[in-house]
Amino acid sequence: MGSSRGVRHDSMRARNLAVVLGTLHRSGPHTRAALAELTGLTKTTVSSLIADLLEAGVVSESGAVRAGERGRPGVAVGLSGQRVATLGLEINIDYLAACVVDVTRTVRLRRTRPADNRNSNPADILQGMRDLVKETTAEAEESGLRIVGAALAVPGTVEGGVLRSAPHLGWRDVRVADLFDLPFAIDNEANLAALGELWFGSRATDFLYVSGEIGVGAGLVVDGALFRGTFGLAGELGHVVVVPDGPACRCGGRGCLEVYAGQDALLNGLDSVSSLVERLKSGDPEASAACQRAGHALGVALTSAVHLLDPGEIVLGGIFAPLFPWLEAPVGAGLTARLGQMRATPPALVVSEIGADAAVLGAAGLIIQRVIADPAQTLGL
Amino acid sequence: MGSSRGVRHDSMRARNLAVVLGTLHRSGPHTRAALAELTGLTKTTVSSLIADLLEAGVVSESGAVRAGERGRPGVAVGLSGQRVATLGLEINIDYLAACVVDVTRTVRLRRTRPADNRNSNPADILQGMRDLVKETTAEAEESGLRIVGAALAVPGTVEGGVLRSAPHLGWRDVRVADLFDLPFAIDNEANLAALGELWFGSRATDFLYVSGEIGVGAGLVVDGALFRGTFGLAGELGHVVVVPDGPACRCGGRGCLEVYAGQDALLNGLDSVSSLVERLKSGDPEASAACQRAGHALGVALTSAVHLLDPGEIVLGGIFAPLFPWLEAPVGAGLTARLGQMRATPPALVVSEIGADAAVLGAAGLIIQRVIADPAQTLGL
Repeated sequence: MGSSRGVRHDSMRARNLAVVLGTLHRSGPHTRAALAELTGLTKTTVSSLIADLLEAGVVSESGAVRAGERGRPGVAVGLSGQRVATLGLEINIDYLAACVVDVTRTVRLRRTRPADNRNSNPADILQGMRDLVKETTAEAEESGLRIVGAALAVPGTVEGGVLRSAPHLGWRDVRVADLFDLPFAIDNEANLAALGELWFGSRATDFLYVSGEIGVGAGLVVDGALFRGTFGLAGELGHVVVVPDGPACRCGGRGCLEVYAGQDALLNGLDSVSSLVERLKSGDPEASAACQRAGHALGVALTSAVHLLDPGEIVLGGIFAPLFPWLEAPVGAGLTARLGQMRATPPALVVSEIGADAAVLGAAGLIIQRVIADPAQTLGL
Repeated sequence: MGSSRGVRHDSMRARNLAVVLGTLHRSGPHTRAALAELTGLTKTTVSSLIADLLEAGVVSESGAVRAGERGRPGVAVGLSGQRVATLGLEINIDYLAACVVDVTRTVRLRRTRPADNRNSNPADILQGMRDLVKETTAEAEESGLRIVGAALAVPGTVEGGVLRSAPHLGWRDVRVADLFDLPFAIDNEANLAALGELWFGSRATDFLYVSGEIGVGAGLVVDGALFRGTFGLAGELGHVVVVPDGPACRCGGRGCLEVYAGQDALLNGLDSVSSLVERLKSGDPEASAACQRAGHALGVALTSAVHLLDPGEIVLGGIFAPLFPWLEAPVGAGLTARLGQMRATPPALVVSEIGADAAVLGAAGLIIQRVIADPAQTLGL
């Protein structure tokens, strides 16, 4: 009921292409007759829409299936990953990454290049990213794939397609979209990691994804959709106040979550998360204290987040995934103690299943979602 | 593109009724010819839809207007407040309230009954509310109005139409909907007050409404719609953690915003907000310190809220409205100091224009929104 216009023919075809493709995406291959029944469209209309989708390579015909009891065998049509694919990209503090995902959400390629991007020159890094895009696209095309769009995950705030501020990269107000010859989107890494978790991880539809990196971010998924706020800046969990007069944070505030639970605070001089995990396994008291401190701060910040955002569950990802065995108890205890009387049970606390790949996969998935939602526009039908 | 079905005739009429009524609601009276042009529907279809809406009394014809240069004069059709109206209801700690609002969002009646509802028996209070509904409905009917639905604002959490927990009333798990002979909704007072601000107050479309009462709540409006979270429990600003090891809060947590900025903390023994305002005006140091303390805590909690929710602006309502002259400086200073480097400017901090009536007006408005969005169903067309 949201539209401001009555239903007319010219928008109806685009809409019905999306209805047919969406049905195949949700419920698998069907005969044209079954699709007509499922969508309420006539068989003639369905056949004509399917012809366009076949031509675009986004669906294909498979062997004969028997549709129900009374049906004659028919040819099933299903989503096809043979031709249409999208590109996920990520600029992280420590690496550049790319992946190619086809329209069935099968991962076809992944490439990661270690890099030291702290306080870097945007032009250098973006040149490296362009090279990575070229190589990855060429390789995908050799497999017969057509890249119809790309999205880039960045560790910072994005407004109107511009990277406003990525403090760990040392970047401000960098316009990235113009640098690529593809339909292109750019978004915050925690937002895209949340979508990665939605489409490639647990596939729960209601959760707060918590991204532990050099910074701490979060992406809220409600009913399968990302909540972005008014300016696209929602989910900055790392700067939720834990101790109002605590140590200064790079954001200008004091006692933010990031001060206690960001990667630098957790590593406390160690060179990597694997080193920290080793120490934790051997019962090192300093490593254990750092995890306790981070877990306590996460418990406080997540209590505030649960009260404000009301997530279905809480998924710990990024560096919090390998540290989950040591974080689960202090975080869970904090949530239970503070939320106990407001809710029957606090939201479940779980670990991300896809770890470090979440953001780059979410980026590719974002463009696939656009293809499924509007094949007419994204595939030029 | 969200629907899972193609467009068929049987749902099309309901949809087009909503399109026509929505157009009149948004852009004022139009001739049938102009409506056809605006909606893309044929004139025959528009005439038939308007006939149904006239019959239901939700639109009326007015004098002849000249539609553009080439048009002959035609009869304009516009939204009419003469017959269809809704009922807003509120159970507050200190009073019961009701209002009647017609479909043009004109307030037709308001009734408030002082009461002491702290730790009360639900059956008694609900009987009082039923009496108020009867009287108000009878009075509205005398003016020729037909009440097509009601919504009730309550100071507590609501899940699936049940009042789960209203700690200041002392109520748990109270089912209210069955008690009225009307299409009925129940919601948290801060949510409905936010909608009241949207429809009857500033009419901004992106803001966090902060409701100062005995408890502190908030309702987030993004792009003209209320954000509710996964279980409908979002916006519990009063229990955002300000000082992690602060004084115990009734919620089981410690150092929650409510401990510092709820009505009891602000009044600090005074009998009313008006008394507090009198003291503040006379420069009383204790009253001033209470406001400073509340303002500082609000600044901390709202910093966390801005990072997580990314609101367009912050509207202080309820008892924070009369206290705004004394809260504005400490709250604003806290936001500016803490948010400075993450955002060009913190969200604007403004005062609600509708004060204590926000929730009961929002309740009535919620049902009007449903009438506009789906006249076929709500008016039985």
